[in-house]
Amino acid sequence: METTEWLKHSVRVRYQETDQMGVVHHGNYLNWFEIGRTEYVREMGYSYSEIEKLGLYLPVVDVQMSFRKPAKYDDVIDIYTKVVEFTNKKIIFEVEVKKGDDLLVTGKTVHVWLNAEWRTVRLDEVAPELYERLTKGAVIDKVK
Amino acid sequence: METTEWLKHSVRVRYQETDQMGVVHHGNYLNWFEIGRTEYVREMGYSYSEIEKLGLYLPVVDVQMSFRKPAKYDDVIDIYTKVVEFTNKKIIFEVEVKKGDDLLVTGKTVHVWLNAEWRTVRLDEVAPELYERLTKGAVIDKVK
Amino acid sequence: METTEWLKHSVRVRYQETDQMGVVHHGNYLNWFEIGRTEYVREMGYSYSEIEKLGLYLPVVDVQMSFRKPAKYDDVIDIYTKVVEFTNKKIIFEVEVKKGDDLLVTGKTVHVWLNAEWRTVRLDEVAPELYERLTKGAVIDKVK
Amino acid sequence: METTEWLKHSVRVRYQETDQMGVVHHGNYLNWFEIGRTEYVREMGYSYSEIEKLGLYLPVVDVQMSFRKPAKYDDVIDIYTKVVEFTNKKIIFEVEVKKGDDLLVTGKTVHVWLNAEWRTVRLDEVAPELYERLTKGAVIDKVK
Repeated sequence: METTEWLKHSVRVRYQETDQMGVVHHGNYLNWFEIGRTEYVREMGYSYSEIEKLGLYLPVVDVQMSFRKPAKYDDVIDIYTKVVEFTNKKIIFEVEVKKGDDLLVTGKTVHVWLNAEWRTVRLDEVAPELYERLTKGAVIDKVK
Repeated sequence: METTEWLKHSVRVRYQETDQMGVVHHGNYLNWFEIGRTEYVREMGYSYSEIEKLGLYLPVVDVQMSFRKPAKYDDVIDIYTKVVEFTNKKIIFEVEVKKGDDLLVTGKTVHVWLNAEWRTVRLDEVAPELYERLTKGAVIDKVK
Repeated sequence: METTEWLKHSVRVRYQETDQMGVVHHGNYLNWFEIGRTEYVREMGYSYSEIEKLGLYLPVVDVQMSFRKPAKYDDVIDIYTKVVEFTNKKIIFEVEVKKGDDLLVTGKTVHVWLNAEWRTVRLDEVAPELYERLTKGAVIDKVK
Repeated sequence: METTEWLKHSVRVRYQETDQMGVVHHGNYLNWFEIGRTEYVREMGYSYSEIEKLGLYLPVVDVQMSFRKPAKYDDVIDIYTKVVEFTNKKIIFEVEVKKGDDLLVTGKTVHVWLNAEWRTVRLDEVAPELYERLTKGAVIDKVK
């Protein structure tokens, strides 16, 4: 599968997300990445809740983040998410967090499909419909 | 049951717990209250993990907090926890967060015993040993 | 000043806000209360950022919360906020968190006006325009 | 400068740090990395608070994390921190989070020295004593 288009989702920075440096604490970007993924999967026609109800988990196994400029309290920031790799065993998401045209943070998260016993599974075997949907979804996205 | 003695447990303020006001964000005190309860229950001879393995939950149903002075980054603060009410249906904890002799925050949390279906249960019926232990624990504490 | 109308603001529950009980961790409601207040003040024509730029802080001094039903991952919940007391020294907000018609959590937060040296101030003296605006805002709200 | 020895610091997993997957939410490891760095700097004879009082900040500019096994509620986990690069402009920390002998998470964080105006500075020019101390500290550590 080739890289999909970016999905954009916006959030407003919460006071609790700041730290005494006067900017957003770096850990919060992981939560925003997660929100981006949630909305990406929803756009494909699934909620991540439904995926968990199928007895599947999609935990993070690798993270890479680069911080260029800080976000501040009450900023409206845009989370851009796309899939850069999708197989029956894993998904890699790429993320860009922007404020307007300003690129604040970039990142990449790698995920594997696990069952309720926390073992890796092949998505096309355990949830063929979801597998197909995610594959198709990606294609649909591409021609947007 | 009468009020027990205070159990003291110390934590150091994390950078992530500060906000742009330059002090600890008020929401974090609820986490510290929770740590105080965890250590209180451990002192009684149980870990809260074991309690959940019995199929029991002890969620918060009421909270009251008063903020007098702020905690700051890297402060070592002391969480004092005691039980002020304990029946077969609920527990009320009282908490004081101090920095040395300075009283920073006081609070009270009310909890009820629930089963895995999220329904209220009588602790003496569903977990008599735990019930007895918590009652005894309180008494032992009192004579400390 | 009499009680104002409720201001409604919606948020979607983040995965990070859940805990191993399978529901939203109780501490997150304080963040949602804070979002409700931020949006309430914005509705009055000010951002809380601007207030801090005036050298004023509005920290929480008292909190009361009651938990009726849990919010879950991916729920869209509505935060209803109103002012129930407003003087030149303090503001009291009341909050209701709902999922549709279901009332999940209720709360009240008391705040005082502080200057940059963390001392109480009279809002009508240090920021008369803001004071007037908040008073008017409340009235405008009432006749909505 | 060559790589220093590992500094070990232990924390207990908080209930609030879990998510509905029943394990620690991945974002919390960044907070634990930060605690590891704080304790590392303290071991060198400085508190990070003192560094900020000098008008210096040490924000994160790059993060890399790999997740092998999950930490669970109430686990006592060990954060191992070392410096793998230290110049007058930046520091790179390496971190290992373990539960006993089990390696749970590994990571690396890159930091640059900034002044209060959020501009990069040369540490040996703006805080020569701190620069010397961190350099020496690393050496002392090595011969431990």
